[in-house]
Amino acid sequence: MIWYNDLNDGIILSTRIRLARNIDKTPFPSRLKDKTKVREMLSDSILKSNSTLSKDFTLYELSKLSQSEKTAMTEEHLISPQMINDNEGAVLVNKDKTMSIMLMEEDHIRLQIIKGGYALDEAYDLADKVDDVMEESLTYAFDEKFGYLTACPTNAGTGMRASVMMHLPALVMTGNISRVLQSFSGMGIAVRGMYGEGTNADGALYQISNSITLGLSEQEIIEKLKVVVNKISDMEKQAREMLMNNRKDDFTDKLMRSYGILKYAVKITSQEAKTMLSEVMLAQNMGIIECNGKMTPLELMIKSAPSVIGGKDNLSPDERDKKRAELIRENL
Amino acid sequence: MIWYNDLNDGIILSTRIRLARNIDKTPFPSRLKDKTKVREMLSDSILKSNSTLSKDFTLYELSKLSQSEKTAMTEEHLISPQMINDNEGAVLVNKDKTMSIMLMEEDHIRLQIIKGGYALDEAYDLADKVDDVMEESLTYAFDEKFGYLTACPTNAGTGMRASVMMHLPALVMTGNISRVLQSFSGMGIAVRGMYGEGTNADGALYQISNSITLGLSEQEIIEKLKVVVNKISDMEKQAREMLMNNRKDDFTDKLMRSYGILKYAVKITSQEAKTMLSEVMLAQNMGIIECNGKMTPLELMIKSAPSVIGGKDNLSPDERDKKRAELIRENL
Repeated sequence: MIWYNDLNDGIILSTRIRLARNIDKTPFPSRLKDKTKVREMLSDSILKSNSTLSKDFTLYELSKLSQSEKTAMTEEHLISPQMINDNEGAVLVNKDKTMSIMLMEEDHIRLQIIKGGYALDEAYDLADKVDDVMEESLTYAFDEKFGYLTACPTNAGTGMRASVMMHLPALVMTGNISRVLQSFSGMGIAVRGMYGEGTNADGALYQISNSITLGLSEQEIIEKLKVVVNKISDMEKQAREMLMNNRKDDFTDKLMRSYGILKYAVKITSQEAKTMLSEVMLAQNMGIIECNGKMTPLELMIKSAPSVIGGKDNLSPDERDKKRAELIRENL
Repeated sequence: MIWYNDLNDGIILSTRIRLARNIDKTPFPSRLKDKTKVREMLSDSILKSNSTLSKDFTLYELSKLSQSEKTAMTEEHLISPQMINDNEGAVLVNKDKTMSIMLMEEDHIRLQIIKGGYALDEAYDLADKVDDVMEESLTYAFDEKFGYLTACPTNAGTGMRASVMMHLPALVMTGNISRVLQSFSGMGIAVRGMYGEGTNADGALYQISNSITLGLSEQEIIEKLKVVVNKISDMEKQAREMLMNNRKDDFTDKLMRSYGILKYAVKITSQEAKTMLSEVMLAQNMGIIECNGKMTPLELMIKSAPSVIGGKDNLSPDERDKKRAELIRENL
């Protein structure tokens, strides 16, 4: 199932594990002249392996994809936004889109597992398994002291970035979000808004990830991340209860009005849409609203981003606002 | 049909003709000791007449009505708000509620015809006919120079107040309402907001009426009022066209959002409800929205006034806001 349709508790929306790997004695992609040969070797490590994985993956060469196909893959977090303008890279994607292996992005290999809900151990085990399959036929650049070598030194060591996307609307509404997120700074944990920076994330979506990849084992990184995620999740739950117990009418009124506006608006900006869809998602999680539309609020949030809405048609901001409102009206 | 369900073009919502009459050689109600005898004589002039009207009317003595029955009659404009606390007066109302005859209000007789839409001549003819029936058995206080004598001198002369309720949301939105209404000052025409004073009427509802009752015939008063009403109506139509032609997206977006909010809000203030219901009424008139609810937006506007919503239950402002939102959600 695509990650954004499998949301679990509505607070911890999705889990990602990303491993960066490079081939021994081979320049990093930015300095590699003939990428084709290396890229084929990398894709063969999956597609020609004896593992059952070989049949699960399909190879997409970016030069053969249209702009809108690449945009769609970015939406689903299967390729990085940088790869939209890349004509030399490729990506391996499995059938249910939980695994993607970008080839010739910043590193030779960027293996990513993405799952709906809270699944750090499961995602890491899967990443480790795929990594093992690839390593059967490849020799990674590895240093006893620095671990896996990567194009950017901040990724060296485990080469792993573990991250969890959290929906924290109640902490935003109560004004506690800054305090909560600041309290985890300096712990080797980074918090980024999925849309917008830092604590002003539109849609109240936050990526919580490890910022240190060196000096800790993969398991240690994951355990540390879990402690922080659990803590933030508890705080969000408390904030939701507080709003429901102490400010029920104002709180539910706000959520219901957002739902009403989204169902009838003729035009809507990206920021307004994200904020209101976040409120509807919250209302749905809390059983205040039942959404029976064709798309979940989160899917609509992803698909109503300016780049996605206006991408291929080169629409004006005003036209985008109308198209966005229409998309939401018809699918919420 | 009750006037607020028969709206015609959505600009001229309803028409009222009111005649003030008093009995010759009898003190005005405020100075009259024994009102019962006079009141019976007045009601007999209808109920015991040979006219077919006698069977159409029912007499309600205010002392025998409950507070909520009287509030309901005020909503429907069958009695004046002052009569809610009156235990000596009475009112005659016909079956379809287009006619009411208040007895022992400010004057002995306040005969009112109220019709949906634009119907000044029709309403006046009917008032004249009822007036004739009453005069068959009554002798009115009449002076050759001052015409019909009334408790308040401003009503002397014809004793007639002709008024039209207009819905002017587009003139409010374009900011032209003040200019339009000011242009008719000094012409013997008064403009009042149905809710709120002057040009800041909530719900964009305005009563246009004659302010002079002396020195002109009934027909002259009505013709003069028609000229003004037609002029304002044309201006409102032009403003609607302008909004639709030049600012269609912003305009329809505003109306549709109001509709969405009214359909989902958990609490809503009286002022917000009136403004939004006015916008929905406009959208309905212009064919932008089809309202299929149990009540028209105008009926909801009338029934969501604070006095009506909170009247008999003595609700707090917060409770009224919730009850109002519920009424609108369920009936729009």
